[in-house]
Amino acid sequence: MIIVMRKNAPPAEVESVMAAITAKGLKPLYLPGVEKIVIGAIGDERVLAELELESLPCVDRVMPVLAPYKLAGRESQPGRTVIPVGGVRIGEGRPVIMAGPCAVESREQLLASARAVKSAGAQILRGGAYKPRTSPYSFQGLEEEGLSLLEEARAETGLPIVTEVLDPHDLPAVERTADILQIGARNMQNFRLLREVGKTRKPVMLKRGMSATVDELLMSAEYVLAGGNEQVILCERGIKTFSTDTRNTLDLSVVPLLHQKTHLPIVVDPSHATGLRNLVEPMALAALACGAHGLMVEVHAHPESAKCDGMQQLTPDQFASFMEKAARLVAALAPPARLPK
Amino acid sequence: MIIVMRKNAPPAEVESVMAAITAKGLKPLYLPGVEKIVIGAIGDERVLAELELESLPCVDRVMPVLAPYKLAGRESQPGRTVIPVGGVRIGEGRPVIMAGPCAVESREQLLASARAVKSAGAQILRGGAYKPRTSPYSFQGLEEEGLSLLEEARAETGLPIVTEVLDPHDLPAVERTADILQIGARNMQNFRLLREVGKTRKPVMLKRGMSATVDELLMSAEYVLAGGNEQVILCERGIKTFSTDTRNTLDLSVVPLLHQKTHLPIVVDPSHATGLRNLVEPMALAALACGAHGLMVEVHAHPESAKCDGMQQLTPDQFASFMEKAARLVAALAPPARLPK
Amino acid sequence: MIIVMRKNAPPAEVESVMAAITAKGLKPLYLPGVEKIVIGAIGDERVLAELELESLPCVDRVMPVLAPYKLAGRESQPGRTVIPVGGVRIGEGRPVIMAGPCAVESREQLLASARAVKSAGAQILRGGAYKPRTSPYSFQGLEEEGLSLLEEARAETGLPIVTEVLDPHDLPAVERTADILQIGARNMQNFRLLREVGKTRKPVMLKRGMSATVDELLMSAEYVLAGGNEQVILCERGIKTFSTDTRNTLDLSVVPLLHQKTHLPIVVDPSHATGLRNLVEPMALAALACGAHGLMVEVHAHPESAKCDGMQQLTPDQFASFMEKAARLVAALAPPARLPK
Amino acid sequence: MIIVMRKNAPPAEVESVMAAITAKGLKPLYLPGVEKIVIGAIGDERVLAELELESLPCVDRVMPVLAPYKLAGRESQPGRTVIPVGGVRIGEGRPVIMAGPCAVESREQLLASARAVKSAGAQILRGGAYKPRTSPYSFQGLEEEGLSLLEEARAETGLPIVTEVLDPHDLPAVERTADILQIGARNMQNFRLLREVGKTRKPVMLKRGMSATVDELLMSAEYVLAGGNEQVILCERGIKTFSTDTRNTLDLSVVPLLHQKTHLPIVVDPSHATGLRNLVEPMALAALACGAHGLMVEVHAHPESAKCDGMQQLTPDQFASFMEKAARLVAALAPPARLPK
Repeated sequence: MIIVMRKNAPPAEVESVMAAITAKGLKPLYLPGVEKIVIGAIGDERVLAELELESLPCVDRVMPVLAPYKLAGRESQPGRTVIPVGGVRIGEGRPVIMAGPCAVESREQLLASARAVKSAGAQILRGGAYKPRTSPYSFQGLEEEGLSLLEEARAETGLPIVTEVLDPHDLPAVERTADILQIGARNMQNFRLLREVGKTRKPVMLKRGMSATVDELLMSAEYVLAGGNEQVILCERGIKTFSTDTRNTLDLSVVPLLHQKTHLPIVVDPSHATGLRNLVEPMALAALACGAHGLMVEVHAHPESAKCDGMQQLTPDQFASFMEKAARLVAALAPPARLPK
Repeated sequence: MIIVMRKNAPPAEVESVMAAITAKGLKPLYLPGVEKIVIGAIGDERVLAELELESLPCVDRVMPVLAPYKLAGRESQPGRTVIPVGGVRIGEGRPVIMAGPCAVESREQLLASARAVKSAGAQILRGGAYKPRTSPYSFQGLEEEGLSLLEEARAETGLPIVTEVLDPHDLPAVERTADILQIGARNMQNFRLLREVGKTRKPVMLKRGMSATVDELLMSAEYVLAGGNEQVILCERGIKTFSTDTRNTLDLSVVPLLHQKTHLPIVVDPSHATGLRNLVEPMALAALACGAHGLMVEVHAHPESAKCDGMQQLTPDQFASFMEKAARLVAALAPPARLPK
Repeated sequence: MIIVMRKNAPPAEVESVMAAITAKGLKPLYLPGVEKIVIGAIGDERVLAELELESLPCVDRVMPVLAPYKLAGRESQPGRTVIPVGGVRIGEGRPVIMAGPCAVESREQLLASARAVKSAGAQILRGGAYKPRTSPYSFQGLEEEGLSLLEEARAETGLPIVTEVLDPHDLPAVERTADILQIGARNMQNFRLLREVGKTRKPVMLKRGMSATVDELLMSAEYVLAGGNEQVILCERGIKTFSTDTRNTLDLSVVPLLHQKTHLPIVVDPSHATGLRNLVEPMALAALACGAHGLMVEVHAHPESAKCDGMQQLTPDQFASFMEKAARLVAALAPPARLPK
Repeated sequence: MIIVMRKNAPPAEVESVMAAITAKGLKPLYLPGVEKIVIGAIGDERVLAELELESLPCVDRVMPVLAPYKLAGRESQPGRTVIPVGGVRIGEGRPVIMAGPCAVESREQLLASARAVKSAGAQILRGGAYKPRTSPYSFQGLEEEGLSLLEEARAETGLPIVTEVLDPHDLPAVERTADILQIGARNMQNFRLLREVGKTRKPVMLKRGMSATVDELLMSAEYVLAGGNEQVILCERGIKTFSTDTRNTLDLSVVPLLHQKTHLPIVVDPSHATGLRNLVEPMALAALACGAHGLMVEVHAHPESAKCDGMQQLTPDQFASFMEKAARLVAALAPPARLPK
């Protein structure tokens, strides 16, 4: 950690900062600059966070050298975390496609959608039983009945289920049904919920908050990992920016950036990111091209009658056409060594 | 509601949109433009939201004419909501000052801070017992013990308490202690929590989410109001923007904008917005100058040893000096008719 | 155009709005709603912009139905604009790769870089002779000498040149050298410069401003098109958002969105968007996967000694490796009909 | 400057970084950390910018200790820059009010508006003769005729003139008329224009770009100061954020922040920031409350017939009412020592 002192900080205050560093078991370094004094701290600087050195009047700035997360970083695990779900492995070579309707609306709707995505090659079924909605007057999900329908769809198609849990209160029920517990973007910093899913042993798909930096996303993953649950999948689903041309702004650059910063797999949700059906296929292909370990795509048997987010759900035909292109793209970019001989 | 059809939308699809509007009890209007057909819907267009007309392939755009909230809007209550807490009334002429430490850290720290803010003229005591922290390794609050200390501080100073509730699970305990239930920015769209506080009869201070628009804030207030709790105080506390010059960007323009859009009181938190002690006083004065009904200011007896957010907490002396300026400003801007004769 | 009147707007003011619409040659429609009166205007609503109806106290909101641009929109040209430069055609099937150093620094540096990108398959050479720099103390470009070096590099490699023009004053010199005139992001709304390049007959590559919406980008293109220059290439190069994880946030969703809104070609600059060498290849592949008509990639023979933006410039080897992958990706996604039989 | 090396950077590369620092006349410091090696550079680190150390593969991050600007910073001038214009002094105690129409539209319009703002107490007249407009089809200003009308308004009212210069080509004409040269937000990084106004001896009002950080704003001021023109006034006029509730988001926190970082005066434009007439007065009062050295307010004798931005222009009555409140606020916040005895 580098601590820049304010100009003209009195020697006694510089010494007290150095003493505080020593007291935490780190080695302080005194670096007198031309305009300002700088203090370095050598050792695991994360213990210094408690000191809140920024709050001292004599301190200008504190610049960390290390990342604030431990378990989520590459340092703690130089390999990649691979998460097996049903017959697929998320985080390994081949991208995994999760697809299905935004919300579970009815038995017919869910089963028709599940069959369609299965037949087009999806490996995991998505569908929300508990729906976070901006308006209290909108459809809020079928809740426990929705979970039962998801179980029925799994039984019929064999597809594992990813579904959202909104609150610790619902966790036992959702945990019984889900193969992957989804934490939505609005809950990325619902720390109580993160701690609770950290106690389960179900894989967790953590969506990036609408205004979360990469470090904030990884700190939220750290909550789950610190609870002992090592199966965290990150998900980019678009951020809030000045642009209103799309529902959110899909920030694909974090895909290769996260490859460098963490061992956790990263998937992309082009449906919520764009909010526009016509943009889902091109952005899904782009996500695969830049290295996403998977996709979450909304597909509805009849999007025009969907109870939520119909604008962004693909029809079964559109999804099948996309899957065919995705397969070509993945094959073209696969490292030559992995091609069948 | 105005529905713009895509260019060359077939007549049958235009008719089906008009029929859907009629079926919901509204009156459709056919407006053939030069390039595109436009359909108007006359009546309470909010019932049309369920139709998800945007998801129809033949529809280009849907433009609402009315606001999406009902109870939070000026239409439902032309006057202003005034919320009595202890001896003060939030939402009426004189701004109400809430102050105290970011977190309850210890008996001594809380009581010293409470006495200081009381003595400087604050009317409500703030202090977090449950703290949402980005890192799982940071101090997470004293929880129930913190609530007891807040009760003790209230008993001694007579100041009512505003404190954050993070999760429905903690609500019974927090509700017993708090005079105002604070919903933090990260929980602005924790809809379950909103619904639960909507069932209580305690005033709720709802902080604007870091990337929430004014309509999204009012829709979250609507969740509480729809539960039957009419005592909602809105709080602007800074938004996420490209600017990293301050911790967040304080968006004071929403203060007069909310005066126009809602009957609910609006207060401002300059401490979290700026994250820098030196900016708190000028931004607090600015908030009062543009019409805030109150302020929430972080004050700590010893900010340099604070366990969280020490950088943004005022010392008791700084707070007292601010309160003196605030009083002059409020007196200067008060309507002449209210001046003593 | 849809004009929503304020609640309780007096009949005389409603009539005056309708009269103003009639006076402009459009047909007004009176739509009395339950809460508010709405007025529609049928005809080419763009002439209404001059009326500034928003500024009337009785008007609540004005919602345009048509896009504000004419020449840049799909309506004015249902086909696609294809721009021939040297032997390639920008906007047609095969993506065009522009590559070269950020700045022209010296004869040796430029020629080595030009040979490298030519040899790896680039079709157009980029290089800045006039550099917009945040600091007045940074290298500002070789200016006219840089233009001469670009001409020499073209003579040797046969690659056409794209280079930035910063100011109308430099336009005659840059126009003599450049095969494509580049307008940088900071100049996207330098309207005088746009008008001047609109008078030339050289293709113009217009970069999206760091905080420009798609409509603002197309309005800037409209300035060039309105001058009679029909050869405009749009370029996405990242926008300013709250995220500081990358230099800018690459907004790839605008690629397929612009395919729908305009007939102009759209290329992507992953170098400025990410600012990080390791992210250039994955984001360049993503841009191709979502349909970009071309790329602009910074390549420097020796990035570690570059005078500007060394962090984001590829080495020749990295570029050659990327080009090989790009070729596989483009072949995989090409429509089957174009595959050799 | 602090240079963080990548993990496992080879000793030879660490040495080459240290040698490069020495070669620039600074003193390198070797700081071996637990995970990463850090190198400090002692001396005027701004000369290291040319090294572009970030572009070395062995370097992880470069963290500057000093601000990138010299002339604009407090270090270069501990006092405050005060700029005399006509009879007023911008940057000293009493805030200076600039007011007038957005654009000069006609002799009658300008003179009526000028008389109105003069009579209400404004000290400087604003009015655009050259207008930057998003659309090529909008009114672009009266240009040279507009300048003549401004001269006539000055002759009649005695008010000095602030007016925008869009391009170096127009500078001689604008310089002859203007008492203050305004650089608009879209031109904040038009470096050629900055350099040209830096050669004049007229005060320059530099508006913050819509996505510019404080450091970027001060670097643009540095261009003018480096040219020898020491009379730079900064202007906050709103930034682009995700919020579309107001035209831009007024970022008032930069007012006290700039007081700390620079000796240059800072004024606020609440008209462009909000884009809504009803918000201008409260935000103008807020700007004064947090320490702005002045305001630029749009006032039009007949806003409902304005040729641009009518929505945000005050009527003369509204402006007079605001000025009365502003006087009360300024008196209330003035330091007691300055009150007349």
